[in-house]
Amino acid sequence: MSVNPVGAAGFVDEERLWQHHMELARLGATAQGGVNRQALSTEEVQARKMLSRWAEELQLQTLADDAGNLFFRRAGAEPDLAPVMTGSHIDSQPTGGKFDGAFGVLAGFEAFRALDEADIQTRRPIEIAVWMNEEGSRFAPGMMGSEAFTGMRPLNKILEIEDAAGVSVRVEMKAAQAATPHAENVPLERPVAAFIEAHIEQGPILEEEEKTIGIVTGIQGVRRMRVKVTGEEAHAGTTPRSLRRDAAWEAARMVSALHDGLYVDDDVRFTIGLIHLQPNVPSVIASEALFSIDIRHPNSEFLEKLASDVDIICRDQLVSCEVETWRIAEAESIAFPNEITDLIEKASNRLDIPNMRIFSGAGHDARQLHFVCPTGMIFIPCEKGISHNEAENVNSRDLAAGTRVLSEVLIELAERLD
Amino acid sequence: MSVNPVGAAGFVDEERLWQHHMELARLGATAQGGVNRQALSTEEVQARKMLSRWAEELQLQTLADDAGNLFFRRAGAEPDLAPVMTGSHIDSQPTGGKFDGAFGVLAGFEAFRALDEADIQTRRPIEIAVWMNEEGSRFAPGMMGSEAFTGMRPLNKILEIEDAAGVSVRVEMKAAQAATPHAENVPLERPVAAFIEAHIEQGPILEEEEKTIGIVTGIQGVRRMRVKVTGEEAHAGTTPRSLRRDAAWEAARMVSALHDGLYVDDDVRFTIGLIHLQPNVPSVIASEALFSIDIRHPNSEFLEKLASDVDIICRDQLVSCEVETWRIAEAESIAFPNEITDLIEKASNRLDIPNMRIFSGAGHDARQLHFVCPTGMIFIPCEKGISHNEAENVNSRDLAAGTRVLSEVLIELAERLD
Repeated sequence: MSVNPVGAAGFVDEERLWQHHMELARLGATAQGGVNRQALSTEEVQARKMLSRWAEELQLQTLADDAGNLFFRRAGAEPDLAPVMTGSHIDSQPTGGKFDGAFGVLAGFEAFRALDEADIQTRRPIEIAVWMNEEGSRFAPGMMGSEAFTGMRPLNKILEIEDAAGVSVRVEMKAAQAATPHAENVPLERPVAAFIEAHIEQGPILEEEEKTIGIVTGIQGVRRMRVKVTGEEAHAGTTPRSLRRDAAWEAARMVSALHDGLYVDDDVRFTIGLIHLQPNVPSVIASEALFSIDIRHPNSEFLEKLASDVDIICRDQLVSCEVETWRIAEAESIAFPNEITDLIEKASNRLDIPNMRIFSGAGHDARQLHFVCPTGMIFIPCEKGISHNEAENVNSRDLAAGTRVLSEVLIELAERLD
Repeated sequence: MSVNPVGAAGFVDEERLWQHHMELARLGATAQGGVNRQALSTEEVQARKMLSRWAEELQLQTLADDAGNLFFRRAGAEPDLAPVMTGSHIDSQPTGGKFDGAFGVLAGFEAFRALDEADIQTRRPIEIAVWMNEEGSRFAPGMMGSEAFTGMRPLNKILEIEDAAGVSVRVEMKAAQAATPHAENVPLERPVAAFIEAHIEQGPILEEEEKTIGIVTGIQGVRRMRVKVTGEEAHAGTTPRSLRRDAAWEAARMVSALHDGLYVDDDVRFTIGLIHLQPNVPSVIASEALFSIDIRHPNSEFLEKLASDVDIICRDQLVSCEVETWRIAEAESIAFPNEITDLIEKASNRLDIPNMRIFSGAGHDARQLHFVCPTGMIFIPCEKGISHNEAENVNSRDLAAGTRVLSEVLIELAERLD
């Protein structure tokens, strides 16, 4: 047996890959064609069982850790070497799509089938990781599995978290673990040689640029904030402007000024997606406006500057209200190592697949793995950039192309000893 | 018996008037010290019974029409003459106050007691009108009783209107009418010699100017509109600005520009009190923003100009969304006749009560009566201008002062034959 990259990529089967996506999408399928398969739900546990059956067919070893992560291991010639990993997540948003997360897991399975059919054995084992609760829609915040695996968040804190119904991760984790009783327990924080996550872009750039592969150069940092404007409730018809303390108006001034002030270059992603007025009725001047801030930028220092400008810009727009701004979450931008991005680029070029470098606006499990091993991501386009939406869709050719690149990269990494 | 204005005003009893307000406020009292006594509710029907008992004590005749309006008539020396009317409403907002509407009705009762104690008989009968559903919070739109009485809205249309639970005005009206079985039925659109409504200002001007009486010169017109901005849902972290269609941002631009563009003089009252975003979550670009417009101005032509500017200003602020604007209600400004405002001013001055002319920003039943008879309004200050709020409050001295002026004006009008 020998390394034969083009051979492995040649065995990736577009039709089979698409069918597996459709099979998985039946678990938690919604009437609108999307998926509701939240972390550790009945549907997600069914999906774990389905994957574990597929793993048996492929003679993969099933491993599980105490954080609810599942791993499907393809044996390497040198079993004691740290594994190369791929994978993503199978949990979804409550009104999620069929490809977000699922693609990264199913691309791993298809790559393994292709390697089998090309009769390739690698030196290192390769594992498909199924990270627990990436989305964080049921148990917040998300990224639980990859944060526990990389030692970024203590497991006992994660287990205590409850969903809206008061059910804890600890309780639901037992049900999930019971779904794969044959899985060998493996420790958290075990060594990983490299991690490659395939994922849909969740944005419109690849489609706009007519590229099939996005070589992800990093994941941008984010600052999540809240702004509260406090005014005074008063009658819309009677109160003269000089006596108004109109929280809705002053908030609108701030929203407008923040957009003008923070969009200083094309890399800024600035969103105010949530606004709550009190009392929010047409004939009463608003006494309070609360709005969200989501700022992302590849450059961490610059991102921090933008975040610290928020309070200044808001105060500049005050007329007679008061304003308070605060941060609720922050993450720094990370850059994936050149050795990985170059590897993905070369594989794409070798396979003659149109590609471009792209920065990830969204967060992914790969962010956490980046801190413990050489990590990279392969993006494929999604229709109109729509994601976190039941209408999420992709082209099956792109699923296959991404999987071809993934299989080449996995083989190369699994041959390396450094 | 002779006319003795100062005598009548002298008999207005501040303590008794305050106690009657507190007694009425028990019906529908809320934990926060306000009132929830919506039109034709159990509490409002109890209030009708309470008023009708007080009317019996004062030997007033109880009248009712088919629109749910109640009238308490104090006999005149010439019973065939059209009555002078005073009064207001006893229905409230769901989180309303103890004085909005109630003051106009209870001032009528106190004025009658004062006239009795001063032993005054007028030529014309005087009636206290209790107009059905002024607020329009349960059955929308409001002003039902006064609009039916003045022939501005057909009764059969009013009777068909249902509340949120699907209960019709027709059904609830029967329960209300059963509360005053002794009431003599009177026709809608019967002649009225004059109408004077006492009311709290619901704004801060009298308090700011340290005046006790507001001589209402008119009620300003209003245009109520809605603006809908349509964008596209997209991921906050991934979508570049050039591809965004952010309904929240463009709506904020419009709100800001509308405030800049429409506040062209001190008489403008412009309010955006309601904003609804879709999907209204921090990490998703808003696909829709719906907001309310409430514009009022004393000058009807000018008001119309302002309303027609809304669409132009909104379109000017478009970047990549679409916008639609539409009107949901409009009323022209009215000016009360000088003969009435002069009468109120003279009475206030005679009683040495600090007064000023004031324009009403809020709508009142007096607007409708203005179209069928000489009409005017007497305002008293309310604490900090707060109204439509459980915290609504007034000074008992001001209740008494307003009632003194009212009693003087009613006597004068009820003596006139023109």
